[in-house]
Amino acid sequence: MPSLRTALLQSSGHPGSVARNIEVLDDAARHAAAGGARLLVCPEMFLTGYAIGDDVSRLAEAADGPAARAVAGIAVRHGIAVHYGYPERDGGTLYNAAQLIGPDGTALANYRKTHLFGDFEQRWFTPGEQPLVQAELDGVRVGLLICYDVEFPENARAHALAGTDLLLVPTALMHPFPFVAESVVPVRAFENQLYVAYANRTGSEGEFEFVGLSCLAGPDGTVRTRAGRGEELVLGDVDPALLTASRAGNPYLRDRRPGLYGSLV
Amino acid sequence: MPSLRTALLQSSGHPGSVARNIEVLDDAARHAAAGGARLLVCPEMFLTGYAIGDDVSRLAEAADGPAARAVAGIAVRHGIAVHYGYPERDGGTLYNAAQLIGPDGTALANYRKTHLFGDFEQRWFTPGEQPLVQAELDGVRVGLLICYDVEFPENARAHALAGTDLLLVPTALMHPFPFVAESVVPVRAFENQLYVAYANRTGSEGEFEFVGLSCLAGPDGTVRTRAGRGEELVLGDVDPALLTASRAGNPYLRDRRPGLYGSLV
Repeated sequence: MPSLRTALLQSSGHPGSVARNIEVLDDAARHAAAGGARLLVCPEMFLTGYAIGDDVSRLAEAADGPAARAVAGIAVRHGIAVHYGYPERDGGTLYNAAQLIGPDGTALANYRKTHLFGDFEQRWFTPGEQPLVQAELDGVRVGLLICYDVEFPENARAHALAGTDLLLVPTALMHPFPFVAESVVPVRAFENQLYVAYANRTGSEGEFEFVGLSCLAGPDGTVRTRAGRGEELVLGDVDPALLTASRAGNPYLRDRRPGLYGSLV
Repeated sequence: MPSLRTALLQSSGHPGSVARNIEVLDDAARHAAAGGARLLVCPEMFLTGYAIGDDVSRLAEAADGPAARAVAGIAVRHGIAVHYGYPERDGGTLYNAAQLIGPDGTALANYRKTHLFGDFEQRWFTPGEQPLVQAELDGVRVGLLICYDVEFPENARAHALAGTDLLLVPTALMHPFPFVAESVVPVRAFENQLYVAYANRTGSEGEFEFVGLSCLAGPDGTVRTRAGRGEELVLGDVDPALLTASRAGNPYLRDRRPGLYGSLV
């Protein structure tokens, strides 16, 4: 099976302007596809900006709303899957969500963040109730989490147990938490024997200073590609052969003893 | 509350000779106590050596056997708690165990490794069935795991949920797994908001090349002290004030959603 080349868009975008963010996304998708990528992962809340206050309610859209249709057009135009964070409206309820659109424009999966971070998110959003959302892309089983979710080992473990090969994690990781990008993300990949694609914001919004450091971490604990602190598009390969070899050498899932873990639930 | 100064003994000891390992332990306890330490943590299977083959059965002792009494004498003589790994015999059953002896010579806790690593351990030992063993030392709640146990996020999480402040992890980490000492251990400390004292072997035994890198990792993800690759005794402080401050800023345990983690058990 060939590798799935994955691009990570690290960008501040244009907080408050969905139209301009869609332009940035279109440009990133063109460059990613030209570099051979079959998947582009964008940061958390990329379509609107993260710290947009009251605009959350104004800019939130349904999962099949106009912005989703625009992203589907981009995916088809460049022949690349696109995963992007956005505020989702479902009736009167708002979720911090991320949606995966396939290279043919089909919506493959939509995930609502289950672990909301801090006062801002907890004020505006309702937490999702579905911890395990997956899809297939070019023979790779992808799983969806958002930012703070991946800091809880339970969430990534549930994906490993369900066969996820590549965990997609749009994020808005801020100062003073670079340790999460630098260390927690590679450890999640290693302890669960899967890839983690972690796409962060950069720059500042209001009180938040995002730290960049987007990365693709491999099942052997190595970082396959890592961005710096500024605007950047980085590409890395998800290699099924490395997954197979690493899983043979690190039998964590086989050596688990679920009967001893009762206190966690 | 004052800090609990903790010493980590990184040593190959003398595989096959309990008497000589007790001499090394005595010397380390004297130096640790002179440096102000109240606790000395030794590597996995320190009393006997790790890759001792058939000698496991010959050298294994009961938790209150002669070696335990010798260690208790060392603890009293130097006024320091000692935690050491050893093969435990209980009737006809052998465990890969570690025992904590208080500064007054009292046996405070004994733990049997629940997650056995590789063919060698799985041949000789029966896995423990008690995942959560704790004790109190100078007002700090300590918890006991051994080596491979800590690579499973579930085991460290169970300790965090039970209030462990300091996780003691005698280990025999070998090539090619330095990533565990360098990254997994600090992440366990951070994601669970506790200290991890990770005391490794060094040098070679049979097919195994131990990688050293013993460390005391703090709840903020920082490494408070780190050994190199060779024989070394390193000291670091477990600071209750840092635990309190770090837990206030990183509310992982409060933000968990146990109702979503059912697939783990």
